[in-house]
Amino acid sequence: MGQVKRVLVIYTGGTFGMLKNEKGVLTPQKNIEHRVIRKLAQLHDDDYWHKNLAKTDKADYLVLPDGKDTDIKILYKIYEYDELKDSSDFMIEDWLKMARDIKRFYYDYDGFVVLHGTDTTAYGASVLSFMLESVGKTVVLTGAQVPIFQPRSDGNNNILCAILIAATLHIPEVTVFFGAKLFRGTRVKKVSNTRIYAFDSPNFPPLLEAKTILEVDPKMLIHLPGSVPDECRLHDKLAQKVYVLKVAPTITPEIIRAVFEGMEGVVLETYGNGNIPIKRKEIYKEIEKAVKNNVLVVNVTQCINGTVLGKAIYETGLLLVECGVVPAFDMTAEAALAKLSYVLTKTELSYQEKVELMKTNIRGELHNPNH
Amino acid sequence: MGQVKRVLVIYTGGTFGMLKNEKGVLTPQKNIEHRVIRKLAQLHDDDYWHKNLAKTDKADYLVLPDGKDTDIKILYKIYEYDELKDSSDFMIEDWLKMARDIKRFYYDYDGFVVLHGTDTTAYGASVLSFMLESVGKTVVLTGAQVPIFQPRSDGNNNILCAILIAATLHIPEVTVFFGAKLFRGTRVKKVSNTRIYAFDSPNFPPLLEAKTILEVDPKMLIHLPGSVPDECRLHDKLAQKVYVLKVAPTITPEIIRAVFEGMEGVVLETYGNGNIPIKRKEIYKEIEKAVKNNVLVVNVTQCINGTVLGKAIYETGLLLVECGVVPAFDMTAEAALAKLSYVLTKTELSYQEKVELMKTNIRGELHNPNH
Amino acid sequence: MGQVKRVLVIYTGGTFGMLKNEKGVLTPQKNIEHRVIRKLAQLHDDDYWHKNLAKTDKADYLVLPDGKDTDIKILYKIYEYDELKDSSDFMIEDWLKMARDIKRFYYDYDGFVVLHGTDTTAYGASVLSFMLESVGKTVVLTGAQVPIFQPRSDGNNNILCAILIAATLHIPEVTVFFGAKLFRGTRVKKVSNTRIYAFDSPNFPPLLEAKTILEVDPKMLIHLPGSVPDECRLHDKLAQKVYVLKVAPTITPEIIRAVFEGMEGVVLETYGNGNIPIKRKEIYKEIEKAVKNNVLVVNVTQCINGTVLGKAIYETGLLLVECGVVPAFDMTAEAALAKLSYVLTKTELSYQEKVELMKTNIRGELHNPNH
Amino acid sequence: MGQVKRVLVIYTGGTFGMLKNEKGVLTPQKNIEHRVIRKLAQLHDDDYWHKNLAKTDKADYLVLPDGKDTDIKILYKIYEYDELKDSSDFMIEDWLKMARDIKRFYYDYDGFVVLHGTDTTAYGASVLSFMLESVGKTVVLTGAQVPIFQPRSDGNNNILCAILIAATLHIPEVTVFFGAKLFRGTRVKKVSNTRIYAFDSPNFPPLLEAKTILEVDPKMLIHLPGSVPDECRLHDKLAQKVYVLKVAPTITPEIIRAVFEGMEGVVLETYGNGNIPIKRKEIYKEIEKAVKNNVLVVNVTQCINGTVLGKAIYETGLLLVECGVVPAFDMTAEAALAKLSYVLTKTELSYQEKVELMKTNIRGELHNPNH
Repeated sequence: MGQVKRVLVIYTGGTFGMLKNEKGVLTPQKNIEHRVIRKLAQLHDDDYWHKNLAKTDKADYLVLPDGKDTDIKILYKIYEYDELKDSSDFMIEDWLKMARDIKRFYYDYDGFVVLHGTDTTAYGASVLSFMLESVGKTVVLTGAQVPIFQPRSDGNNNILCAILIAATLHIPEVTVFFGAKLFRGTRVKKVSNTRIYAFDSPNFPPLLEAKTILEVDPKMLIHLPGSVPDECRLHDKLAQKVYVLKVAPTITPEIIRAVFEGMEGVVLETYGNGNIPIKRKEIYKEIEKAVKNNVLVVNVTQCINGTVLGKAIYETGLLLVECGVVPAFDMTAEAALAKLSYVLTKTELSYQEKVELMKTNIRGELHNPNH
Repeated sequence: MGQVKRVLVIYTGGTFGMLKNEKGVLTPQKNIEHRVIRKLAQLHDDDYWHKNLAKTDKADYLVLPDGKDTDIKILYKIYEYDELKDSSDFMIEDWLKMARDIKRFYYDYDGFVVLHGTDTTAYGASVLSFMLESVGKTVVLTGAQVPIFQPRSDGNNNILCAILIAATLHIPEVTVFFGAKLFRGTRVKKVSNTRIYAFDSPNFPPLLEAKTILEVDPKMLIHLPGSVPDECRLHDKLAQKVYVLKVAPTITPEIIRAVFEGMEGVVLETYGNGNIPIKRKEIYKEIEKAVKNNVLVVNVTQCINGTVLGKAIYETGLLLVECGVVPAFDMTAEAALAKLSYVLTKTELSYQEKVELMKTNIRGELHNPNH
Repeated sequence: MGQVKRVLVIYTGGTFGMLKNEKGVLTPQKNIEHRVIRKLAQLHDDDYWHKNLAKTDKADYLVLPDGKDTDIKILYKIYEYDELKDSSDFMIEDWLKMARDIKRFYYDYDGFVVLHGTDTTAYGASVLSFMLESVGKTVVLTGAQVPIFQPRSDGNNNILCAILIAATLHIPEVTVFFGAKLFRGTRVKKVSNTRIYAFDSPNFPPLLEAKTILEVDPKMLIHLPGSVPDECRLHDKLAQKVYVLKVAPTITPEIIRAVFEGMEGVVLETYGNGNIPIKRKEIYKEIEKAVKNNVLVVNVTQCINGTVLGKAIYETGLLLVECGVVPAFDMTAEAALAKLSYVLTKTELSYQEKVELMKTNIRGELHNPNH
Repeated sequence: MGQVKRVLVIYTGGTFGMLKNEKGVLTPQKNIEHRVIRKLAQLHDDDYWHKNLAKTDKADYLVLPDGKDTDIKILYKIYEYDELKDSSDFMIEDWLKMARDIKRFYYDYDGFVVLHGTDTTAYGASVLSFMLESVGKTVVLTGAQVPIFQPRSDGNNNILCAILIAATLHIPEVTVFFGAKLFRGTRVKKVSNTRIYAFDSPNFPPLLEAKTILEVDPKMLIHLPGSVPDECRLHDKLAQKVYVLKVAPTITPEIIRAVFEGMEGVVLETYGNGNIPIKRKEIYKEIEKAVKNNVLVVNVTQCINGTVLGKAIYETGLLLVECGVVPAFDMTAEAALAKLSYVLTKTELSYQEKVELMKTNIRGELHNPNH
């Protein structure tokens, strides 16, 4: 047996492992390893497992079949959470658990795959990116639009590519593989609920595309190969009192007040280049009041592609800049909410330092042309 | 002089006609006709105007230069609003005014162009689509990412194509021309704040692309040519108490309660196929309570491409269906909000009839596979 | 057992069934049914096969596993050709054989899948489209960029979707499924040799996209459902003396003469809108001479998207029109060559009738705006 | 007057400056400066010209109107060729002339724009790239799909952006601006004859996209800013005896022999990964014979996206590698033909050195993973 790599696959829930229940709706299933994955010849070489694996490994590992992508023998362990969640139920405590598990098992594996519900993958990938302040191994989130129990599942190819990438490519950051592309975790958005290619990263190119060969251009990565230490440093706190408010033409001061009430941070999803209505001054006043009360308000554009710069272009954006609303540049709303949740627990920082951190690119999440 | 067509161009504000003010931010300018448009040889044939226009026409009209796209002579009048608005300031009263003006001048012109701020074009186009219950002439909204005062303005090409389409193609619905494409008004979204191709309609193909020739495939239109009467029927009321709430992992019952408070209708921007968190029952309960209180709640997906069907696919979506939240199918959030605003003023309808109307395709805004 | 459908899968060669040989290059393998396909749980339900299939069926059929896409039980037979060809070796005699086999087995199966080499799929799909003058059942060509023997093969999903489509959707024409899309056979081009999404149809939208559900919009098809008789009418001759000549700046009369020599038909791949150099008259003269000698010369654009109209736009295209070169409209070069090969054996037609047939849309291969 | 830059715009022909002639086809027009360009307010600030230009400059220059993209005052001279060519008539002698003119006027201008016919722009941009062995200033080719005499011309925006880029951005290589994108000259292909966005570079990202702002990421360029000397070194010979032969299923040895006859170099447009039919040995033999006779044969894929590697993947490609056919990697057919034409006149090189040069990336035209 030549070189061997071991990957931990954390199964947390989501469409990937679902079957219909008695009500006819999909719910996550336990024990996908034995019920499905072991039986799929693309995902497990049972013959090799029987003949070649040491007894201790047999208890823990499945074996990826040999293929042209690598000469490395890849073993992977499926670590199934006790409570498997529906995609839309993932919340902060789930990501804290995942991040802690990656840290806990960090030196036992060569790479990590997280099977995650697609509805909240963009949030999860962003949150994990921020919490893992240093990570020297590849972390890939993936999932499926069609459950692995179905013949026409995309989960098959997604988990296979995710494990191959985690085992053979050194991409020391949190990423998302879906369809045929690997995206940066802080850049990803779910862009379709029906297409197999469910994700995109509209403001940043994919890190790689799975073609007939599987290779990454190191220039795409946050860290040059060899430049990041092999350690896992975790910030394991996240603020809960953050939310997102989308600006729409029927907005009123009451709505702003109601949503901002009790919040530590708010992502304001504004029009275009970061604009809100200004003819009705009372709208602006409400936001200004919140900022004065130390709510960290971040300005993200509603446009799927684009940026909110620090410098206002229109009069309607000028007031926000002047009152201290923080431009998000080209962050997604998901990344901005995750970053807020992270930055707000940096208790060692002043309000102004938190503002600066929000505007600074720390995990490849934004491009600030002034830096 | 051969065949002549007359187009009304309503200039309402937006980036199209902006210049920087003393604060260095862009603000809308008055009198763009004389300050810019007349001077652009692409947009006005001054020579022809001097020599061939009747004195009465001279007072009102500019003349599109001849070109290969048509043999028709196209005159257009720029009707400038007294109060020109910044893109993000457009609200319901503005669209009421525009709709009333289209009706008022309906028989005086062969087609209509509205120069609109891009930030709210998706809302404006949807609202106008619903209010104009019958329209037999082409209505095109357009604008610019770069002001017409700039050499590199896209407004030039946008207004030119919009006028040509309004004068020469019979597309009896509200549309948006931008970049090189004409979109259905109820399908359009602003997808970029920096690219020249700022709009897209992710769930419906463009109605036409301006190529070396300018033609439309009639199969793309709502109405077959000749099947729609040449009349303008206007529903000129819109509900104000409607808003949009986006679901995010940190959602709480308090947020729901606060946003729903006092609303007649709410667009709930849910995860994926129409899902919300369900482990925390109190979230669902809050929505259920609102529906019981006759708030019309519409379920739109956060995904830029996709649909929320009437039938729940996941357990997290099932509860919403069961408690009477209305699936939006593949409507955009913008169209859903506009439609709510329209439907809620149909006082002759019962709550249940309004629900049915929301699920029914009336302006090409959705595809309901059950119908 | 409920409704049953039977699909014939003709395995003719190509990357789909390849393994590396002793020289380290991929060559097609025999007996993929037993060596691979039976072992893939996504493609064959061995348990059902053992327990439920009649003995006669067992000898012939594999069983597609149940899934959410259909309630129909789908049996399929893999019919492997004796001589399996490398993609680039497919030629006219191979397509004659395939077409004859589809006719031979036409009433024995509900649909047909052809596993074809990707290099020549665009030619094969076009040729089969023309030869099958009437076909009332779905014919799907597919293949793979990565062999089915590889874990990361796309062949898996391609053959699965192709069989599902052939069994459950009524698309009575020759089509190509690849990646996630089904294309019209006469419109398809291989557009990448490295991406998994290797095909596109640049002048016509895909017939369907395999999303979380698998459905076709009947408006996309050549024939309305129910309007095509369930018969297989075959024109089983093809002309061999046809070729393609691409215009490039260094073209000379000698090159034209040499390629046209002995040809019955030539696809001229011209610049832009159907242009050739004209300053050097001798180039044009050479083509004119060929046309006078009854070579059927068809004018196809080199641009992957676009059309060559019957009416010249530029002076350089005018001469070709005047001398009788036939515009291909928006046909691909592959479809044009295939159509020439078909039309030239219509011995009952005069030269001029063949010219007319070339300009007429007969299998969805072109859009002639004059018709 | 602040900083001033001067751009030379060489007008060589093409659709950009065309009008219909008496036969109703478009032909290039003389004196576009006075007949059109001066009259377009977007392209010329006549007021400034009258008031501020020195008499000597008045004779030569037009003035770009001020705009937000730059504070530099840009003067440009239109240098119109005596013989204006139709797009498809451009040939080697034309590009020699253009290259010599760029060298001749190199120190008189800050940047160069070439108005070129679109049909042959991909060839022209490649040929100029190779001939200009060193160039320290920006060279931009552009043109139009719709003539500048037409209101709906794209030439307007194309020439404006090309001049702005040539004057204000330092991109010391030959490029093509079209639609909204700037492409590397050796990577560009005409991909549509009807869409306004007529060009693409399928194997390399665009160098920039003209958005609301106009900026280039220096990482995209061949040379780091400041690393290239400000000189113009010209190799002003090009071989004529080069051509392109596309492989199709009906290929015969006679066709190969006929096209290769008398050639010094041939671009073989092969299937997929670089494959030709091999069952019929006589086809391969014909190519082998040519290589033995020192014809430089280059293997380019027919796929618009992809690469032909040095190492054969399929048996059908192996023979070509073994007999000395040179892999083109991801070069376009246009770039490969241009490079052949350039390399073959390097009389100081041996045959084998020419082969090596063909495989080496010298103008950003290919990616050779072995280097």
